[in-house]
Amino acid sequence: MSRICRALHARESAGRAHGFVRRSLRGLLPLPAACGGGMRKAMSGSAKRIAELSCPIAFAAKDTIVLGHGSGGKLSAELMKEIFLPAFQNPILARLDDQAIVNVNGCRLAFTTDSFVVKPLFFPGGDIGSLAVHGTLNDLAMGGAKALFLSAGFIMEEGLPLSVLRRVVESLQGAAAAEGVPVVTGDTKVVEKGSADALFINTSGIGLVPSDLELSSNQARPGDRVLLSGSIGEHGIAVLAQREGLEFESQIKSDSAALYPLVAKMLQVTRKIRCLRDPTRGGLASTLNEIAERSQVAIELQEVSIPVSEEVRGACEMLGLDPLYVANEGKLVAIVDPSAAEELLDMMRRHPLGRDAQIIGTVHDHTAGLVTMRTQLGTARIVDMLAGDQLPRIC
Amino acid sequence: MSRICRALHARESAGRAHGFVRRSLRGLLPLPAACGGGMRKAMSGSAKRIAELSCPIAFAAKDTIVLGHGSGGKLSAELMKEIFLPAFQNPILARLDDQAIVNVNGCRLAFTTDSFVVKPLFFPGGDIGSLAVHGTLNDLAMGGAKALFLSAGFIMEEGLPLSVLRRVVESLQGAAAAEGVPVVTGDTKVVEKGSADALFINTSGIGLVPSDLELSSNQARPGDRVLLSGSIGEHGIAVLAQREGLEFESQIKSDSAALYPLVAKMLQVTRKIRCLRDPTRGGLASTLNEIAERSQVAIELQEVSIPVSEEVRGACEMLGLDPLYVANEGKLVAIVDPSAAEELLDMMRRHPLGRDAQIIGTVHDHTAGLVTMRTQLGTARIVDMLAGDQLPRIC
Repeated sequence: MSRICRALHARESAGRAHGFVRRSLRGLLPLPAACGGGMRKAMSGSAKRIAELSCPIAFAAKDTIVLGHGSGGKLSAELMKEIFLPAFQNPILARLDDQAIVNVNGCRLAFTTDSFVVKPLFFPGGDIGSLAVHGTLNDLAMGGAKALFLSAGFIMEEGLPLSVLRRVVESLQGAAAAEGVPVVTGDTKVVEKGSADALFINTSGIGLVPSDLELSSNQARPGDRVLLSGSIGEHGIAVLAQREGLEFESQIKSDSAALYPLVAKMLQVTRKIRCLRDPTRGGLASTLNEIAERSQVAIELQEVSIPVSEEVRGACEMLGLDPLYVANEGKLVAIVDPSAAEELLDMMRRHPLGRDAQIIGTVHDHTAGLVTMRTQLGTARIVDMLAGDQLPRIC
Repeated sequence: MSRICRALHARESAGRAHGFVRRSLRGLLPLPAACGGGMRKAMSGSAKRIAELSCPIAFAAKDTIVLGHGSGGKLSAELMKEIFLPAFQNPILARLDDQAIVNVNGCRLAFTTDSFVVKPLFFPGGDIGSLAVHGTLNDLAMGGAKALFLSAGFIMEEGLPLSVLRRVVESLQGAAAAEGVPVVTGDTKVVEKGSADALFINTSGIGLVPSDLELSSNQARPGDRVLLSGSIGEHGIAVLAQREGLEFESQIKSDSAALYPLVAKMLQVTRKIRCLRDPTRGGLASTLNEIAERSQVAIELQEVSIPVSEEVRGACEMLGLDPLYVANEGKLVAIVDPSAAEELLDMMRRHPLGRDAQIIGTVHDHTAGLVTMRTQLGTARIVDMLAGDQLPRIC
């Protein structure tokens, strides 16, 4: 609990100092959206401005890596823009989608990589092994790619019990085999005790993309509908609860799952899908901000349509977290031509991975890069990108 | 120097206790082959048996990961056989080459992954960024594959200076650009201070293999010649010296380099190459043991033909290391039909990456899996696989 307690305490102090509470730790922790509709209501118009005000809490040092750089939110995007993109500059990487699409002798291949540092290694609904498979397969699936091959690289800390390694490797293999994807190449490294935290895994994947398919986060157009395949926040809360030893009335399980079976069906129903994304680190809010930014459109959400389970909502309220920013590992967002939205939604709801699918919003052209939400109280709220790191080491 | 001093001290005690010194730390540190020709001479016949004797030094715990599991030697091979191969069982991985060769719509692709945990991040002749490119490109090149695309995954410790990250990223990009290979996809993760050692990098790569080429460590045949592209041990000694603050008369630089330009030329000269391998972790000795084991052949080396620079030889003698077990990052071993060996050697010596190439040995059929060396004194010595971890975190 120590991290949460510290965070809550810090928020309280910051709140007192300013008389407002949203995202007061600037770049460190966002504040609970669930902490009071009235407050959010009062903020909606000026939230962006307020979030820019200075704060008595020390800023993250500008010249070192902070946890927020791994959040998938604003700091991650900054790091990408300031260090990685200028160095690696090439048009494939610059698409900034979850996967690179490359041509090899006439084949359209998807290629992706992901490192996993989730803590703890085992959590309700999954472990680092199955997560490493689902995460990378989903990055391929969001390009419409059927996965063909996986690699697995293990960085192990001296002293890691072989029984733990064996359990993780078997889980990783089980998850890969369930999707019919072989692990064809691998690597192991060992570092001294204290130089890593038990076990980190990198998986990379190769997939095959249909020749006529162009899914990308820069394809959203005004009028498009935003579909979400199910309820949000389960993975983040499950990992956090396990890490901090929290117990809720009913156990919250990670939604970690491989999404390609759903994607394949969706692509059979319609090719009017512009973009698919899985809202992992940084949650739904960060993913939609990325799409709005790259497509230069606005997105308006309906809070009432966004599925959040009672358990996750309760846990988020208790912990001061906003489910919009909590990680998912088995959900997808689809930006779809309005003419295809209803038919696609019907299909998704008949699939086990999309049972609770909803149309949660619409794409507009009024303010490029802006995501807003019509709240259940009828007010509008800006849904910004995650500014810091809500939950570190969630994947 | 602490690690080295401990190791030397432990060796001394073990040596006193047994009256012999070679590989007395069973699975932890090999002993210096360079510590006296007479001693090695006396051991040659019974080295394998002696290495099996028990030892007063505690054995590595059998149920946890030890540094030796990351050595590329015997413990790495055991881990592979006991945990990874049984779980992932598939014929592509079971080839156990540096890369998987897979078919995608009629293209023969090479796919490989490697994580880099080298300490320190910067060393004479390279850094973790250039090394991460050379290591993965070389794994592709050893399959005869021209590299097409790279991925890069960064695991960063909170507090890593951005200036260090920038320098590494620029070096990584520089090394990739020098070979004309773009980094098309990437990932960043951040862990708390103390949960990783500054920076780990995973690179995965995709390459294209000529349709009629079959290089593999199971292809060596009796009569084949063993070619080595240049002098050994530079990378390992350069990293160790930097890490431990050692100074030699002249600075030893890592040989880290991308080998495909040499490989491409070699394949133009002859297709009678059975196998290419780069002797990285575990050194030349471990690589040749793997080839001997997988091809079920014996390999006999000529010590006099194995190029070792005076600087590396001196450093190894001082540190009690055997250059045969020290890592290289810019050298290759080729197993070649005898009819093509001389022509290939001539060509290699005309290439900057193979200037000091030598024919260092011959493949035989007398004892499957055995590597021996005819020493400069005319005696024979068994060259076993690295039993433990000579130098941890060398790549």
